[in-house]
Amino acid sequence: MPKILIKTQEHKIEVPILLTAVSGKIRIKNRSILNEYGMPVAVRRDGFALSNYVEWQIGYDVVKKETEKLAESSLPKTEFLGANGKIKALYELSEYIWYFYKWNVISKKELENVIVYLNSVQDHNLIDKNTELQIDRTHPIAKNINGFDFEYTQVKYPLLIYKYKGYEIVTEVKITEKQCAVGIQPMLYLCFPITEFKADVNLIGRTSQAKEIAHFEITVNNIKVFLETLKMFGILSKNHKHDILQIINTILAG
Amino acid sequence: MPKILIKTQEHKIEVPILLTAVSGKIRIKNRSILNEYGMPVAVRRDGFALSNYVEWQIGYDVVKKETEKLAESSLPKTEFLGANGKIKALYELSEYIWYFYKWNVISKKELENVIVYLNSVQDHNLIDKNTELQIDRTHPIAKNINGFDFEYTQVKYPLLIYKYKGYEIVTEVKITEKQCAVGIQPMLYLCFPITEFKADVNLIGRTSQAKEIAHFEITVNNIKVFLETLKMFGILSKNHKHDILQIINTILAG
Repeated sequence: MPKILIKTQEHKIEVPILLTAVSGKIRIKNRSILNEYGMPVAVRRDGFALSNYVEWQIGYDVVKKETEKLAESSLPKTEFLGANGKIKALYELSEYIWYFYKWNVISKKELENVIVYLNSVQDHNLIDKNTELQIDRTHPIAKNINGFDFEYTQVKYPLLIYKYKGYEIVTEVKITEKQCAVGIQPMLYLCFPITEFKADVNLIGRTSQAKEIAHFEITVNNIKVFLETLKMFGILSKNHKHDILQIINTILAG
Repeated sequence: MPKILIKTQEHKIEVPILLTAVSGKIRIKNRSILNEYGMPVAVRRDGFALSNYVEWQIGYDVVKKETEKLAESSLPKTEFLGANGKIKALYELSEYIWYFYKWNVISKKELENVIVYLNSVQDHNLIDKNTELQIDRTHPIAKNINGFDFEYTQVKYPLLIYKYKGYEIVTEVKITEKQCAVGIQPMLYLCFPITEFKADVNLIGRTSQAKEIAHFEITVNNIKVFLETLKMFGILSKNHKHDILQIINTILAG
């Protein structure tokens, strides 16, 4: 991804987003009214529609040893110790908060309140420990399909949706299996309508150009959404909580 | 992956399987009795247990233009036209069937029966069109978690399990969203206990060595499981059906 554009005078950050990436952290999806479940869109072939939205698996850190990714951060010299024992720098979400704190849009008090809040949430209340948010599987039943005697079950994954009051932005917290351990893993996605994009040519009704980039603007008007998202990250798991607390301390010390 | 070993005299194929691959087509998983849902195992750290099994996303073709993958096929000169318009060669599942047909273990009649069967299954009865096998989502309900007002839903994915009578082998057909279109996509996984492996040193109770390889043996005793799996692939979707019919015709003509 190209680097973010920091407009200090205007208190604005422009995040360049590659519209045609079919894998990776950002996807253009389509939400039908019928089931509300987002499906990826082939924007080069099918073009953009009003019902499209951006699903952004936003991050908040970068491991400093990963030099290629570190180059994408505008704050490669910042430093904190991650819960996984790795030295990390601020990136994406934490990067944006860093600038708006420096610009006095986010106050010291607001950041301290997040620390107080996170310290008040006990470990057993973190999302990955929440007994009501586990992955569920129905008891198998016999089902004959075209002559094959299958057993049929349903695997149920919890999905949490959070709507930011007064904004078109939504976060989705998807619960999935951990990759190499017992337990669940909450993943946070920021979703916003593609109409929120600043593109050189209006997107709706046309197809995407190859490697076309649009910009998402973070301003004084929506930075509070990102602060709220940082806070939400902190309640996903013990490791997330540790990292977010470290990040806020790094921003306050910066 | 290293190439398969074809032992013509013994009517046996040895499939080398990399035990430590954490991503990719083969994973070592663990099934607890409690919920029967397989979780990946860190075999280098935690070692092998009797409850471990192999989840193998077995393939049946290779696009001939993908030369690196084509080199893994022992039949790179075979050829058929895939439903996606690409020229393909036999690979994995279709490769095994090819040899056992050549060795007269699988008869012409058996392969013709699969053709007759697949031609008898109408398009609307294919698994991806089955109305009872769609992805389901519960109506959202309000749920307050640590002060955040979330909406909570469950996304339900169908899972079909097929047990081969008389074998320890199972197939799982997972239904997931298509990556770039509306609709569902069935994915087939062959699962067998790790005790089915031929390893130089017994696996149970020890950790895996770096890049350790074990062998799965396909013989006259279990090749019928693979023929049944080929048949099952044919009912997943219209494209699968097309490819499997092409493959059987290629084997019969070979």
